[in-house]
Parts: sequence; C-alpha cells; structure tokens
Amino acid sequence: MKKTLNIVKIGGNILDAPDALDAFLRAYAKLEGDKILIHGGGKIATTLGIQLGIQARYVDGRRITDTPTLELVTMVYGGRINRQITASLQALGCNAIGLTGADGNLLRAVKRPVGAVDYGWVGDVAVSDVNTGLLNALFAAGLSPVVAPLTHDGQGQIFNTNADTMAAILAQAMAPLHSVSLFFCFEKKGILADPEDENSALLSLSENDYHHLRETKALSGGIFPKIDNAFAAAKTGVHRVMIGEALALMNNPEAGTRLIP
Amino acid sequence: MKKTLNIVKIGGNILDAPDALDAFLRAYAKLEGDKILIHGGGKIATTLGIQLGIQARYVDGRRITDTPTLELVTMVYGGRINRQITASLQALGCNAIGLTGADGNLLRAVKRPVGAVDYGWVGDVAVSDVNTGLLNALFAAGLSPVVAPLTHDGQGQIFNTNADTMAAILAQAMAPLHSVSLFFCFEKKGILADPEDENSALLSLSENDYHHLRETKALSGGIFPKIDNAFAAAKTGVHRVMIGEALALMNNPEAGTRLIP
Repeated sequence: MKKTLNIVKIGGNILDAPDALDAFLRAYAKLEGDKILIHGGGKIATTLGIQLGIQARYVDGRRITDTPTLELVTMVYGGRINRQITASLQALGCNAIGLTGADGNLLRAVKRPVGAVDYGWVGDVAVSDVNTGLLNALFAAGLSPVVAPLTHDGQGQIFNTNADTMAAILAQAMAPLHSVSLFFCFEKKGILADPEDENSALLSLSENDYHHLRETKALSGGIFPKIDNAFAAAKTGVHRVMIGEALALMNNPEAGTRLIP
Repeated sequence: MKKTLNIVKIGGNILDAPDALDAFLRAYAKLEGDKILIHGGGKIATTLGIQLGIQARYVDGRRITDTPTLELVTMVYGGRINRQITASLQALGCNAIGLTGADGNLLRAVKRPVGAVDYGWVGDVAVSDVNTGLLNALFAAGLSPVVAPLTHDGQGQIFNTNADTMAAILAQAMAPLHSVSLFFCFEKKGILADPEDENSALLSLSENDYHHLRETKALSGGIFPKIDNAFAAAKTGVHRVMIGEALALMNNPEAGTRLIP
C-alpha cells in the first residue's frame, strides 16, 4: 500500500489574516503522516515593495519579476513568511523545515522564455525536476517541509515560481510512490456554480463542468491557473485534488470541490 | 575514529564583497566531508533598514533587536542572504540547505533577560539546545547546512542570535561524536600581535596571550566576543579552532591563529 502524503497550498488570503492563519496552522499541525505545506505571498510583499519604491506589475495575474522584485520576494517569501510559518508550526508540535527550490536542490526551474511578455526572473518547473529523494529523506527524518514559491536554475539564479504550480508539480512527482491528497486553499468553500452565491460550492468539477463554467462566465480571472494546475495533477496520478477553504479542508478533506480528471 | 566536521563562520566583511564571497564559496564547496556554514549579516540589513526607516542601535557591538528589526533580519539573514548562498553553493556542486534555528528545531534559544540593557528579541543559546540528531540526519542525506543567525523559542518566537556564538555552540554540541574544526573568518589573517601591522598574525593564541593583548590594548572592541566564543569551543572538545581570513583558511586550515585552550 502506498504511503499517504498531504500537500497543502495556502495563499495570500490566509497569510494576510493572522487569526485565520493561526487556526489553519493548528489544524495543519494535527494532520497525520507525511505532509508538505506550500505558501504563496501576500500583501506584505506589495506593502514592502511600495515602501522600497519597487512597483508591482502583473500580467494575467502573474507578477513580473524584475531584479528588485526578485530580491524582495526572496526576502519576504523565502525569509519572513517561510521562517515564521516554520517557527509557528514548531510551536504546534510539527517538525517543520522551511525550503525554497534551491534548498537541497528541491526543485530546479528554467527561466520562462521571453515571448509577448517578459516575465523576468520567473522559473517554470517540470515534474521531472522535483528532487523526490530529498523529500523522502526529510520525511524519513520526521520533517515536514514548508515550501516558499522560489526555485533555482542550478547555476546560482533564484526564480519566482507560481505557488499553485509548485504544489501541482510536487504532487505529481510524489504520486508514483505515495497516495497524494492535494489541497488548493483559497477564500471560498469551493468552485462556485453561481459566483454571486457563496453557498453554491460544487462537490466535484469535471473538465466538462469547467469548460461550461468558463463559457457561462461563472468563473473568471485568477482562478483559471489554479484550476488548470489542479486538473494537471488530477490527471496524472494524484489521488485526491481539492479546491476549497483552508480550515474546512483540514478538518474534512472532502469539504470542498473535488476535481474529477 | 571520529568523523571530521568543518564548521565555518563568515561575517559581513565577506558577505558585502561579491567577488570575495564568490571565491570563498568556491573553496568552501570543495571542502570534503560534512560541513556547516554559518553566516552573519552585512551592510544590506543596515541599508534596507534605513530605506524602511528602521534605525539600527548597537550596545557593545550587539544589535538591539526591536520588532521591526527582527522582521528585517528575518527577511535579510533568513531570506535574502541565506537563500542566495544556498543557491550559489548548489551551483558549485555543494548540496546546501538553508536553515534557521527554527528549521527542524535546529537550535532553541531563551530570550536574553532584560538587565542594564534590553536587547529585545535576542536569543541566548546553550550547547544542550542543539538538535544534533537533525544535523546528523541532514549529513546522512548528503546535505550541507547553511545557517542564518536566527533561533526560536519553540513557542513561535524567532530570535536574533549572534552568529559567532551559534558557530561555537554548534561546534561544541557536535564535538563528542565528531572531530570538529571551527573556523571564525574575518578580514584579517589572524589575531594580530601589533594592531598596526597586518602581517603580525599570531600562529597561536593562549588565554594568557589573550589577557596580555587585552591589557596592552593590542586588541579591542568587537573582537572580544569572537575570541571568547572561540575559547569556549576550544576548551570543550572542539579539535581545532581557528581565527583568520576566509579564503586562506579554506585553502589551508592552519593559515590563521589557532586558539590553544
């Protein structure tokens, strides 16, 4: 029987709400077995960027990472957020260890080619680039990785990498030897059938459902990359892929929308 | 026979000089066997602090760590410096992993009691608080820890901790099962017999020599805590304790001042 592995991705909505983050971490710390927490950024990077005169630029919901922005996110994602989550989990009895893709060569990336948009220091990742041996060694030592959305190219360059994508890629890489549950947490209870109704979260979402919701404009904007990443994982061996609210999913792994490949 | 372990502490003088840092890291990456790199801060924390309106305050060469300063050093030491050194070492074939004291519960600390001076969020450490099991597990996995001068109290609080002290404490904790060489790197070739003569570095320094140099004012200021830490290590089982210039010590472990307990 495969070992179970929970991979949880949290984003800005919870990182920016100290009480909600605390409640989530308490529940996360209690999850049994091997687990990986992947966090995005939050308002703090934007706020600090403004203080430092670094302007945030986005295209299609993805931040353009120039050199000052890379230095900023390395500090904020890789330092302040990652280290504090790790310290908080340690206080809750979870033996957390904070990583970027450079640490232990967890995840190498390739600089995104410059096309219509130059995303700057953004790294794209592939399932084959995950160092599964490192993760297994850390699990064997009783450690729970906390991963910041940063990667490296193996030549000394750090990259900004989308946290949803990192979560999906790590889940796919671990799926051959683990029964992986992958949780994408956001501010809603799941994918809403009716964007005006917070209680219309779907129990499941197939690709047909997804196309339909896109066509009827019930879904829009920033959620597309998250769902695309989620389907990529669901289609390549990840046992359970859920989208929903962080605390609810920790208390009940089915309390959200399950993606059906 | 005990396994050898090299522990190297570098400070601001090399962190602030990209070419010197690069040359040092190339030499460090080639060191064989288990090793730990401990880094301090550098001008970048001060520069960024000024940009953010955070004033640096020092008493006896030790920074007072108020809450904004703690957030600053968590970002700079734990994020920007630690993650970049790790990525740079990865490029040099050294399987580095960046840690603070919170990661894997490497090193718990106790908040320094408020006496004549309130040092703020500064953590004091003891040899018995080092998680030697974590270090041994990381070595067994082929990993080389890169440690930022941050610790935690196990209750979610991060502390600023002197990097020289951390290096000495880690060395002492590992000494019972390892033949530890501990290298304190700074801008000079060693402890100078004559502060006006850069070529007067001593081959060795006993405690008697140290007291004599202090009395004759040949030594002063910021070097005292470093030497005190170095003697503490030399007196408690650390095989070799050296003070000298980083690159020189990497090329020849005796190319500095050896502390004689």
